[in-house]
Amino acid sequence: MKRLLDPPALRALARGCAVLGAGGGGDTYLALLQALQAIGDHGPVPLVDLDELPDGSLIMPCGGIGAPTVSIEKIENGDEGERLRDHLEALTGRPVAALMAGEIGGGNGLVPVAWAARMGLPVADADGMGRAFPETFQVTMHLAGISPSPSVMTDERGNVAVFQAVSGEWLERMERAAAMEFGGMASSAEYTLTAAQARTATVRNSVSQAISIGEAIGNARTSPIDALIQEIGGYRLITGKIVDVERRTTSGFVRGSVVIEGLGGDADRLLRLELQNENLVALDRGRVVASVPDLITVLDSETADAIATERIAYGQRVTVIAFACDPVWRTPKGIALTGPRAFGYDFDYTTVEKLADARD
Amino acid sequence: MKRLLDPPALRALARGCAVLGAGGGGDTYLALLQALQAIGDHGPVPLVDLDELPDGSLIMPCGGIGAPTVSIEKIENGDEGERLRDHLEALTGRPVAALMAGEIGGGNGLVPVAWAARMGLPVADADGMGRAFPETFQVTMHLAGISPSPSVMTDERGNVAVFQAVSGEWLERMERAAAMEFGGMASSAEYTLTAAQARTATVRNSVSQAISIGEAIGNARTSPIDALIQEIGGYRLITGKIVDVERRTTSGFVRGSVVIEGLGGDADRLLRLELQNENLVALDRGRVVASVPDLITVLDSETADAIATERIAYGQRVTVIAFACDPVWRTPKGIALTGPRAFGYDFDYTTVEKLADARD
Repeated sequence: MKRLLDPPALRALARGCAVLGAGGGGDTYLALLQALQAIGDHGPVPLVDLDELPDGSLIMPCGGIGAPTVSIEKIENGDEGERLRDHLEALTGRPVAALMAGEIGGGNGLVPVAWAARMGLPVADADGMGRAFPETFQVTMHLAGISPSPSVMTDERGNVAVFQAVSGEWLERMERAAAMEFGGMASSAEYTLTAAQARTATVRNSVSQAISIGEAIGNARTSPIDALIQEIGGYRLITGKIVDVERRTTSGFVRGSVVIEGLGGDADRLLRLELQNENLVALDRGRVVASVPDLITVLDSETADAIATERIAYGQRVTVIAFACDPVWRTPKGIALTGPRAFGYDFDYTTVEKLADARD
Repeated sequence: MKRLLDPPALRALARGCAVLGAGGGGDTYLALLQALQAIGDHGPVPLVDLDELPDGSLIMPCGGIGAPTVSIEKIENGDEGERLRDHLEALTGRPVAALMAGEIGGGNGLVPVAWAARMGLPVADADGMGRAFPETFQVTMHLAGISPSPSVMTDERGNVAVFQAVSGEWLERMERAAAMEFGGMASSAEYTLTAAQARTATVRNSVSQAISIGEAIGNARTSPIDALIQEIGGYRLITGKIVDVERRTTSGFVRGSVVIEGLGGDADRLLRLELQNENLVALDRGRVVASVPDLITVLDSETADAIATERIAYGQRVTVIAFACDPVWRTPKGIALTGPRAFGYDFDYTTVEKLADARD
């Protein structure tokens, strides 16, 4: 066991997951409350390294699926994780040994902790993205050729759907349609894999990384933003205020754009973010300054707390940062799955480092 | 075994299913071709009485789900039935002994025959409606308290979805959403039950009845319409021509209305049909002359071949008939599930016989 996920660790984790969410992954405040309640009832959750788990033990990647705008109003029932686990065990005929976040970003980095506490299971120190992405197949397990099926979905009423999809893309379509029918949000588990597979098919140590990020912000003596940028090796894109928010909940996603007007030294600048659950692209008066798969996160300028796309509001004083994604997303297959063109943009991916160099 | 479903029996069955479809249940011509091909390849299918099957043997009610307008353009792959059967057997741990039409009406009365031929299984002489209804839970098994779950759905690509719903209404919502995502049509099995249960929880002998209806039309010496009306004890609502068709494919259904202007002795009359996959209500200048759960079927005035809602076209010379549904739909529970109010109409159900008496 690496550590116990106790209340201080969970609070740091929530802060870090919000930063790694790049605007998405669901609300961290509600997920933190859910996790604190669960470990209060059942005790802290062990965080385990994948090397600690026997090769053949089953890991259940899981979390919420849907539009984050809905998730802050449509709350889980609490027993969704057990239902996913029970059905997955019945389908595979094997016990689930540990839960893992499908995506570490946003509330989805915390939800598996809440579920694991209720089941007395550990959480693996890894996830399938190292951030949050909008679509279910945008995971490292997909790149590694792990089957997404059988996937299990459930809602707060107790409905269960099991999907055997011919591809990750079809799984996404079926799960998204079910999530919409369930009211815009649901809980799901897909890309179930063994510990041996997970050692090379996931982003490792991302729970620890999220906790470190949260601690760096929380322990900052002067500027939390500077401490965060130093911790993650990030780039400040703008400091300013939100002057326009266009956001709609459609087809099971939040889509829209946000405009930030510079303040102080950035007074003549204007940054536009385009989003699909997550912040996908940052444009400085039309010029791309960061894009998927790199992370673009909007921070409260005072506290450095990340503000998710569904919480962005007119007038907020924010600092937008960008930082490098996990190297797996910068491979040709990774870029094809999660780069700008995967989201319909007609430009090639350039790393945030190169884009920053070009500005200097 | 009651009889073998050979080509002559299938042709009569197709004609009868079209009449019992009340406008819905999917295209009988395509389903007939599919069934003829299957029995040509694998031999005729035994039609068995429920009393011939051992008490505990498993019966799989099955068919297509979606909008009939789509089903005439989006054709099945052929192996959908086997996939449904394989998954159902894996889920229940028991072999499927016979297939049964979820609804005898329309192409859905024939699809199980095509599937059964490929699997070497018999078809039970029964169904879940004695007609066709738009929604999956509008079946006699629902009235009898049989669980709809687990239900299995598949498409022509090989995708599979298994649903465990908290209610028949939720099963309908999940299946309809999946059918829409699959392109507007899919194949499904739900309300799986034993032969012992089926003996009291289905409309029995409906395959035989459909064949008799088809034979009555086919063997008519003078008027096929008169022969049909005599066979089923029906009422002629109007003879005329289609002067208006309003039809849209929406939310996985066909919805709309059809107006028939009287000809000959009906020259001053105007009949309006309202439809949701099936013909739900017939109005004679605003006065209800027939409604669900009784059957309203549009027939070609010359041949007495039933014309499904998705084939209705301006100018067709038609005779509209109405006839009594199975008595189970006239019980309070049956009316609550399939009567006018179940479809949002603000009037009570009156039997087609009483409505006819009132006109005389």
